[in-house]
Amino acid sequence: MATLIAPPNHSPTEDAEALRKAVKGWGSNEKAIIAILSHRNATQRTQIRQAYNDLFQEDLIKRLESELSGDFERAMYRWILEPAEREALLAHLALKNGDKNYQVIVEISCVLSPEELLVVKRAYHNRYKRSLEEDVAVNTTGHLRQLLVGLVSSFRYGGNEINANLAQSEADVLHEAIKDNNGKYEEIIRILTTRSKIQLVATFNRYKDDHGIAITKKLSDEGSNDFHKAAGLAISCIIDHKKYYEKVLRNAMEGAGTDEDAITRVIVSRAEKDLKDIKEVYYKRNSVHLEHAVAKETSGDYKTFLLNLMGKDD
Amino acid sequence: MATLIAPPNHSPTEDAEALRKAVKGWGSNEKAIIAILSHRNATQRTQIRQAYNDLFQEDLIKRLESELSGDFERAMYRWILEPAEREALLAHLALKNGDKNYQVIVEISCVLSPEELLVVKRAYHNRYKRSLEEDVAVNTTGHLRQLLVGLVSSFRYGGNEINANLAQSEADVLHEAIKDNNGKYEEIIRILTTRSKIQLVATFNRYKDDHGIAITKKLSDEGSNDFHKAAGLAISCIIDHKKYYEKVLRNAMEGAGTDEDAITRVIVSRAEKDLKDIKEVYYKRNSVHLEHAVAKETSGDYKTFLLNLMGKDD
Repeated sequence: MATLIAPPNHSPTEDAEALRKAVKGWGSNEKAIIAILSHRNATQRTQIRQAYNDLFQEDLIKRLESELSGDFERAMYRWILEPAEREALLAHLALKNGDKNYQVIVEISCVLSPEELLVVKRAYHNRYKRSLEEDVAVNTTGHLRQLLVGLVSSFRYGGNEINANLAQSEADVLHEAIKDNNGKYEEIIRILTTRSKIQLVATFNRYKDDHGIAITKKLSDEGSNDFHKAAGLAISCIIDHKKYYEKVLRNAMEGAGTDEDAITRVIVSRAEKDLKDIKEVYYKRNSVHLEHAVAKETSGDYKTFLLNLMGKDD
Repeated sequence: MATLIAPPNHSPTEDAEALRKAVKGWGSNEKAIIAILSHRNATQRTQIRQAYNDLFQEDLIKRLESELSGDFERAMYRWILEPAEREALLAHLALKNGDKNYQVIVEISCVLSPEELLVVKRAYHNRYKRSLEEDVAVNTTGHLRQLLVGLVSSFRYGGNEINANLAQSEADVLHEAIKDNNGKYEEIIRILTTRSKIQLVATFNRYKDDHGIAITKKLSDEGSNDFHKAAGLAISCIIDHKKYYEKVLRNAMEGAGTDEDAITRVIVSRAEKDLKDIKEVYYKRNSVHLEHAVAKETSGDYKTFLLNLMGKDD
């Protein structure tokens, strides 16, 4: 379930006018901006952008970018975009920054459904006039390239059929390919990049039953190069993306320092989808409420904004 | 331009009734079947299938399959399907028959636009409950697999932008990768499978200008394994698919023996699209009209049907 609290009836025009008032003049009224935008769903936000543009001949996103700053600005910028536009932006930034593990690329290609991924790839075309595939390919090499390009490219089957025999045989193929770190990545790539997600989950379960160890654990035992890491992330996202996101949040707040980009990414991307479930997983794992953890690690408008998105009533 | 001659107004019900009459009883009236179906476009054929099913609680395709035979049956079966269904079927048959050069797979993935290819992949999901990607991957290995899976998977950018600098640099990359048969296929695969088609054409033109030889010629000079063949076919399809189809038809009729499947595939797939242009290319190349060549190599109902699809007024 989502955490976002958005009123069913809102007036895009009134919202646009209130936002205009909040950004006009010397300094802007962050509280007012948060009060409106942290309580509007994707459709409503798009309507507000449109109304703002019609009324004031100005792009609301650009105006907010120039008025806000820091983590708060980045979070608001990501939030106000439509989900597919946002994922396209996140993928582009990950490639531009040369994020070595390509975590965001794996995440987008393995958490989203085949149809959702397609919409993101269309948004990427529109935004950057190139394909996500070609940008991933040009930034990587070798087996990591094969894996990542395969993950973003494939239009997986999205139906519910599971082939138990195939799960059995491909669990064995994966076992042979992973063990003794033998560098036989070709079959790992084929299976991870082309099979349907539901089929893969059956295969990973078979693997665990037959070989007495989770495939992700075996993979990390056998190697720690970028390929192993990316394959492990892909498997985690496919098996249970809520657990995966819990871990992303935990890692982002553990120890010294805070990974604000990761916190923002998860909260902004999932607030309208299943952040409530992720919060539950987080609480079960850490015995701390996610809101409390986030409140401890963040501050100011950024903190207020995130807590609102997480379902806090203000 | 298309060669198909289809009346703008037709009654699906009347067509269904006339077809019923033609298939009923002992032996069927092939002339009547051809007279109707060879003059109906894809939308009309689908309406007829629907009307036939509503009126007689019978699948028209299955009935035709049981009434007709040989090359005529195969051609009619392919023709009556919707274009995307047909391409999905052709891809499936190519994989099932273990066509070593995977010509049909390359053709579908490189001739169709990115959006058309997507519709075929959806049709493949619906028909076979698997993805085209996984079936291609499981039937191939090594570099050929990487190339073919990449070709069918990528959702290429379909816009008109060309980056001249990129065309220059990637023409050089391709030249380095192809020369001396050095087995460095990775960059060939990356470029062929991810760049937009219009960008690739610019790159191939640059290649020819800078290195004084067509890239397809250079590829076939350097090697003749399955990878070289598939890459050469992909490039031919991307550069000029009408010329490519002319060659398919020429090869199918040259020398002793006739490749009916290839003739059927090209005529049935292109009759509603650009077979008129392909006929012109064929005439320029061979100084023989395509209709005459096909009439010489075929006979009976099969011949009548193909000639009708090629625009012959009956």
